[in-house]
Amino acid sequence: MDLIAPLDALFLLAESREHPMHVGSLQLFEPPEDAGPDYLREFRAALLADKTVRPTFSKRPATWLGAPQMAWTQDDDVDLDYHVQRSALPGPGHVDQLLDHASTLHSALLDRHRPMWELHFVEGLADGRFALYSKMHHALVDGVSAQRLMRRTLTTDPFATELMRPWNLPRKPGPPRPGKSRLGGLIDTVTSARSSTTALMRATRTGLVRQQLTLPFEAPRTLFNVPIGGARKCAVRSWSMDRVKQVKKATGATVNDVVLAMSAGALRAYLLERNALPDKPMIAMVPMSLREEDDVDSQGVKVAALLCNLGTDIADPLERLRVVSESTRRNKEVYRSLTPAQTLAMAGVMLSPMAAMLLPGFASVATPPFNIVISNVPGSRESLYWNGSRLDATYPLSIPLDGQAVNITLTSSGDNLDFGLVGCRRTLPDLHRLLDHLEDSLAALEDAAL
Amino acid sequence: MDLIAPLDALFLLAESREHPMHVGSLQLFEPPEDAGPDYLREFRAALLADKTVRPTFSKRPATWLGAPQMAWTQDDDVDLDYHVQRSALPGPGHVDQLLDHASTLHSALLDRHRPMWELHFVEGLADGRFALYSKMHHALVDGVSAQRLMRRTLTTDPFATELMRPWNLPRKPGPPRPGKSRLGGLIDTVTSARSSTTALMRATRTGLVRQQLTLPFEAPRTLFNVPIGGARKCAVRSWSMDRVKQVKKATGATVNDVVLAMSAGALRAYLLERNALPDKPMIAMVPMSLREEDDVDSQGVKVAALLCNLGTDIADPLERLRVVSESTRRNKEVYRSLTPAQTLAMAGVMLSPMAAMLLPGFASVATPPFNIVISNVPGSRESLYWNGSRLDATYPLSIPLDGQAVNITLTSSGDNLDFGLVGCRRTLPDLHRLLDHLEDSLAALEDAAL
Repeated sequence: MDLIAPLDALFLLAESREHPMHVGSLQLFEPPEDAGPDYLREFRAALLADKTVRPTFSKRPATWLGAPQMAWTQDDDVDLDYHVQRSALPGPGHVDQLLDHASTLHSALLDRHRPMWELHFVEGLADGRFALYSKMHHALVDGVSAQRLMRRTLTTDPFATELMRPWNLPRKPGPPRPGKSRLGGLIDTVTSARSSTTALMRATRTGLVRQQLTLPFEAPRTLFNVPIGGARKCAVRSWSMDRVKQVKKATGATVNDVVLAMSAGALRAYLLERNALPDKPMIAMVPMSLREEDDVDSQGVKVAALLCNLGTDIADPLERLRVVSESTRRNKEVYRSLTPAQTLAMAGVMLSPMAAMLLPGFASVATPPFNIVISNVPGSRESLYWNGSRLDATYPLSIPLDGQAVNITLTSSGDNLDFGLVGCRRTLPDLHRLLDHLEDSLAALEDAAL
Repeated sequence: MDLIAPLDALFLLAESREHPMHVGSLQLFEPPEDAGPDYLREFRAALLADKTVRPTFSKRPATWLGAPQMAWTQDDDVDLDYHVQRSALPGPGHVDQLLDHASTLHSALLDRHRPMWELHFVEGLADGRFALYSKMHHALVDGVSAQRLMRRTLTTDPFATELMRPWNLPRKPGPPRPGKSRLGGLIDTVTSARSSTTALMRATRTGLVRQQLTLPFEAPRTLFNVPIGGARKCAVRSWSMDRVKQVKKATGATVNDVVLAMSAGALRAYLLERNALPDKPMIAMVPMSLREEDDVDSQGVKVAALLCNLGTDIADPLERLRVVSESTRRNKEVYRSLTPAQTLAMAGVMLSPMAAMLLPGFASVATPPFNIVISNVPGSRESLYWNGSRLDATYPLSIPLDGQAVNITLTSSGDNLDFGLVGCRRTLPDLHRLLDHLEDSLAALEDAAL
């Protein structure tokens, strides 16, 4: 039995039927040309043939000192048949049915009596592709690490014969361990330096408060900043990376700035449509790397939770992009002015941006500290395959929270940027409208800049 | 805001992620001959066209005096699109895939932020039929009433043009109100007579303890009598009513006795297979009507929670049937010797046999008071239709509990007896084996009796 790290325990403690604390992803695959009708069934059977399960995929919460959030125990008899499931879409098998299905899967709590992860192979898409919905508890792995982990099942070789299983990946060579361990190390470092999670959070607040001083306003209350229910709506779409890069080139902004401005325009349109646009601009929390392009010091973790003025009060798309760029630039500066311990603490929070929201008292830092988390998770530009099937898209599905009823997470995949939106179903029954607004917002940037 | 009746509140209080407290049913329908590929989509759309929702289907738990289990509030904006869902089976769409799907649906908790019911239209069965999985929280409706309610959406007319919706059924004529209200009335009567749920339970215990005195042994501990996890396995199958009736005729037993003996034989075989058959016979709790065939007094509720010696220690099928018949007969006698208040209390428990298990202290009546609940819910022998689709089967899916890891509920439907078995997935990963044992057990009774 191992003790659960304090930050991870937080995700178990904070979880309730209204607040599932798992990260998900929805991937689309094109099966190989010679795939028969039993391809997926045989794929799953081949995966399940290896019953070796690594510790991350075989540990489950144990009750220790009366609390079920304190310790992990190893499950010696993992029921892979339960963890790897098949399902199908009802007709006509279009994206609407896929999103309904993903929303249902993403709403359900993971079973705490088992290792807290699930894979779902979804067939019945009209275009002949299949989907993989995967789900891991945030106490096991944060969103970035989950993404990396699923990446490691893939290969650039369409004809590879070796089949990788997420639950039994070969150990990575070399000293830099994957995200989760890094986070663990971080927590060790920070907690030994500052002696408690409270101290860690105090440092984080200092960082956020200092950034807020550079912003023109505190975050306004919007319809997104309300308590949430347990049901989810998911919406996903891909945009060509080339379109975003052309706006970047024409304006001198970064890719991330363009993505933020595109999101800001969509949020503005969504709120305008509902007569609910606040006078003051919305503030996003954006996990972001601080490393410069020419920074070769690969050892240090230089990631930060940046606050960004989204300029949602501004109608002109280029002016909005300028405000966003200015805001991210200035808050990166603030970041660099923090003490190393503060930077380290913030980095810990960046790896799990949700952790901050969960801490008692955090909500009182400011009212509210920010309106939305927009997260750009590193992806891969290569063509990738699993069992001969080509990966077409990877949509991250993250965690809405009380006061943060919608989350936007995106990742690069091949030549695309794949957006995954997750909202509280009650607060955003028409979440899919945001997809159209994202397209309109990017088109407006193109019109203005090109 | 209405207060929740004490017995109903119990089902909300007792619910946890390990113990979902909803009753379900899985129905199979044969679509009309002229049904096109869009039949189910149009069926659902037609259902959703009427947005009038009666109180039972629009109330949800409200937080009152700090407790979310005390009061109902009406939801004025029921999101029917959420409550009525479509899904599909992966290939090859056989009964295995259907049971996997039903098991997943039956494992998930209902959302307490909404009225606590769901309907799922399931397509993709290889034989062209479709399934309807329905689910209601036990705090809304008990299993018998849920069954009756779904029955009222059906008609004997295959060409009926009026479409009935479970959430907006016309009021029933005449004074006898449907099950739920009757239960409500019962509780009112009992609680006003005895002033508290505790008193009600005290009366129930008296009844159970008196019955236990007529049994040869107390219930032994078996592998079914363990704490349970949150995941479920469902297994369903139909048997011809004629086969059961022939055994009944040849032996002079009742249909219910034959069903109990059939179940007993299956449980015996399942335990034998695992070298886990106790020396002492298993005891079933069997909700049963006490009304004689010629009893025309339709006002009184004459149902009881009978304890039955299943004779699982006996190899000979006819001898086992004899023990079962003798046991049910003697315990009906005991029942008749109870005071009217005690009978009334027991009747309340019969309408929700699970309630007894949930009460603190109940488990200490005896160790354990019984091994399994086997419930025969009244069904219909007529051919029934919904939107022109013929009902082929109705499998009740009930609630396993701590100490009662498997539940057997059956109902008559057309010319069949439809069995629905629900087990804790961890305790009974191979629940489906019980289906084969049920068949073998009935065949053994036929061989011996005919």
